[in-house]
Amino acid sequence: MRLTSDTARARFIDARAATLATAGADGRPHIVPVTFAVAGDVIVFAVDHKPKTTTDLRRLRNIVVNPSVSFLVDVYDEDWGRLWWVRADGDAAVLADPGECAEPLRWLCAKYPQYQARPPSGVVVRTDVTAWSGWSASQTDR
Amino acid sequence: MRLTSDTARARFIDARAATLATAGADGRPHIVPVTFAVAGDVIVFAVDHKPKTTTDLRRLRNIVVNPSVSFLVDVYDEDWGRLWWVRADGDAAVLADPGECAEPLRWLCAKYPQYQARPPSGVVVRTDVTAWSGWSASQTDR
Repeated sequence: MRLTSDTARARFIDARAATLATAGADGRPHIVPVTFAVAGDVIVFAVDHKPKTTTDLRRLRNIVVNPSVSFLVDVYDEDWGRLWWVRADGDAAVLADPGECAEPLRWLCAKYPQYQARPPSGVVVRTDVTAWSGWSASQTDR
Repeated sequence: MRLTSDTARARFIDARAATLATAGADGRPHIVPVTFAVAGDVIVFAVDHKPKTTTDLRRLRNIVVNPSVSFLVDVYDEDWGRLWWVRADGDAAVLADPGECAEPLRWLCAKYPQYQARPPSGVVVRTDVTAWSGWSASQTDR
């Protein structure tokens, strides 16, 4: 049932979206959907034009005071024998320097045609993954 | 783009699964998928037979030391004009007394045929929602 680190990472890379959990200095968890790209053991996402407000940037404020983050990819199925999920835990940093953002933005634009038409103009968040984990209700190679 | 509290709640109720974020005493966020039921401004989920290990019960340990939780329902679509998500923030409590668990278990079994064949045998977590919120990339009544 437990997926190997390699399998968890491979499934994570294949996903088109994930959910991101951060926590503030007050310990309150915060959860948002993100689009992302993976290179090695690094996950990046950008603040883009998808709908949000200033309050939505709580994800960034949280990361500044508490770099611990957790990403989840999961697929629901009414056949609970087919459920699986993978998680990436790590430490995040907000990159604001254009030089640091350039390569992550290339990864994101390569993954999402939506970004090719309109590249993200905001900051980039880089997460160094410390653990890839995952579960599957059924045995599988992947 | 912002959804009303009523709309966010209605969309949340319609969903079959959500992701749950908790945070421990160390401030590390933790994220897992959950099946759930809603009654009024209460969300319940149970520890059931879906695959997990003892370490997966970190969600419960976190709630005991830090009742703040956040649930997210979101649907990814390659047409980013169709993206939306809804979130429920609240305070959770682990119910272990069978008397307290009975009604939430009925809600869960009513929603999921999978539970009717095999009701959850573990504890129930009850969350009193303090805020329903949500976003949609496009204008909509629901």
